[in-house]
Amino acid sequence: MGHIGKQTVVYKTPPVIINAYSSAGPKEQQGPLGEYFDNKLPDELLGQDSWEKAEAHMIQQTVQGLLDRACKLPSDIQYIFAGDLQNQVVASTFGLKDFNIPFFGLYGACSTMGESMSLASMLIAGGMADLVIAGTSSHYCAAEKQFRFPLEYAGQRTVAQHWTVTGSGFVLLSRNGEGPKITAITTGKIVDLGITDTFNMGAAMAPAAVDTILTHLEDTNQKPSDFDAIFTGDLGNWGVAIANELARKSGVNLSPILNDCGKMIFDDKRQETDAGGSGCGCSASVFAGYIYKQMLKHKLKKILLVPTGALMSPGSSQQGNTIPGIAHAVCIEM
Amino acid sequence: MGHIGKQTVVYKTPPVIINAYSSAGPKEQQGPLGEYFDNKLPDELLGQDSWEKAEAHMIQQTVQGLLDRACKLPSDIQYIFAGDLQNQVVASTFGLKDFNIPFFGLYGACSTMGESMSLASMLIAGGMADLVIAGTSSHYCAAEKQFRFPLEYAGQRTVAQHWTVTGSGFVLLSRNGEGPKITAITTGKIVDLGITDTFNMGAAMAPAAVDTILTHLEDTNQKPSDFDAIFTGDLGNWGVAIANELARKSGVNLSPILNDCGKMIFDDKRQETDAGGSGCGCSASVFAGYIYKQMLKHKLKKILLVPTGALMSPGSSQQGNTIPGIAHAVCIEM
Repeated sequence: MGHIGKQTVVYKTPPVIINAYSSAGPKEQQGPLGEYFDNKLPDELLGQDSWEKAEAHMIQQTVQGLLDRACKLPSDIQYIFAGDLQNQVVASTFGLKDFNIPFFGLYGACSTMGESMSLASMLIAGGMADLVIAGTSSHYCAAEKQFRFPLEYAGQRTVAQHWTVTGSGFVLLSRNGEGPKITAITTGKIVDLGITDTFNMGAAMAPAAVDTILTHLEDTNQKPSDFDAIFTGDLGNWGVAIANELARKSGVNLSPILNDCGKMIFDDKRQETDAGGSGCGCSASVFAGYIYKQMLKHKLKKILLVPTGALMSPGSSQQGNTIPGIAHAVCIEM
Repeated sequence: MGHIGKQTVVYKTPPVIINAYSSAGPKEQQGPLGEYFDNKLPDELLGQDSWEKAEAHMIQQTVQGLLDRACKLPSDIQYIFAGDLQNQVVASTFGLKDFNIPFFGLYGACSTMGESMSLASMLIAGGMADLVIAGTSSHYCAAEKQFRFPLEYAGQRTVAQHWTVTGSGFVLLSRNGEGPKITAITTGKIVDLGITDTFNMGAAMAPAAVDTILTHLEDTNQKPSDFDAIFTGDLGNWGVAIANELARKSGVNLSPILNDCGKMIFDDKRQETDAGGSGCGCSASVFAGYIYKQMLKHKLKKILLVPTGALMSPGSSQQGNTIPGIAHAVCIEM
């Protein structure tokens, strides 16, 4: 056990993802992966009186759906890791409080699915727990209001702008059981190449994604073709192009194997989502809804999931700061 | 290894806190613990052009101070856990980005010191890492601006209101070495008794503190007198009174042994801090600056550190939500 290479842990007894559950909003259901989501939300409000409360409600539904599918009670679960994009991660607080599960709140921006799965898997592999839930969420309307403009303002979108996913994904990790296993993780450093354009998050996150992916390959002595696919979180069209270019400059050709949850979840032309999907819920719902099921069907046998986050706030950008990125890689094998 | 009782892990090979380092602002230096802080900040701005950037700068200084004191390089450290009160925890991002240490961002409000020490200790005890840094910070001016009123507004304070600490504390945990050891942790659940008064955070957090403390005692089959002291994070005068009363109703007399970092850091009468200190930096700087040194001198041999957090945002309270609390207990023995 313990550290391999610079930033990687390879598990001798890999934790098992024994179940996964996803929720997705109306627009996400109309995208290419629409049929795969488990909980198809009828609208963005879910009977609540604010977008923020609707996101908490979606989290509650997603975790309950996961527990139901796994035939588990909240009291069976030792820890839950979660976080979201709302200030002070209140969507997670209010979505999870009634489960009474010991709670670790995270903030990793859109890398949170990678962060939560990494920590949950380390606790299980280290013998600290038997059953741990990990997941995250985002909500288009809540995120637009907080990070950009209220929807009512009807601001014009830019070509490199993302469309925050209304969605959530949670997974149940176990020491034993059937399912895809987390065999290794590589925890990201904060990478800052000086990007300041808040309408081009793909450019801000791509350097972190490439840093983590290349470190994982180096630490584990593997090449891209050892994986069926590498899925970044939400680099989008422009971020993926930059990531491929950065990797190429380091002598690694990622392009045949690199896909991105933000590119997969929407049809950017038909759905006018510009750069593609983003938000913590993007990689979370695409993994729990689509990738996990492809692994159960053995259509994907070994993947690297690399959720990517832009570590900024509206205030930090208004004060002239850069937008550092981070990415956490999780190797999953069937 | 693994779970003991409901929510507790007792370590067979307890991780060692081989070093600690604290920073504190001018007002904190004038308090009863002033002499103990390692890095005495000359003012609240530290040469930066905003309070938010000053907090990031304080974090940078604190972690550098910790590394220097421990004679370690950033590349010796496998993980750093940190979080703060700023939206999207940007103080941690900008304070830590240049260290290039794999980073897990947390949000636990003022419970973050307990959360970060719990996770860091589990990774070490589980064989996932040898050296991990854990810590957090808060900044009075940045917190007032974000959570309450800008200082220039000169809003009148209420009797149950806290004074957010400008301070930071980080600890270095190791598999081997000399120093106080983390022998057990109890991870808190979100506890919500329906408090909505954002000017009485002690009342919001006290139920969570008592829940975690009593669970720790029950899980480990101990009584309050088995500890030299139990230190909550920032319940303050009113919160400690409520906690003592809640424990008494459960048949446990905590009052002879219960102290609170928020009560300790200021002289509430002389310094007009009302309920006492608060903020992630309160328990972090009091532990790293004062308690840790008392343990090294064997004046304290066994303590329970219980940082307490109020899981709310200005937006969640404006939308009529309650203020749930959380508390994470860390048992430390010399």
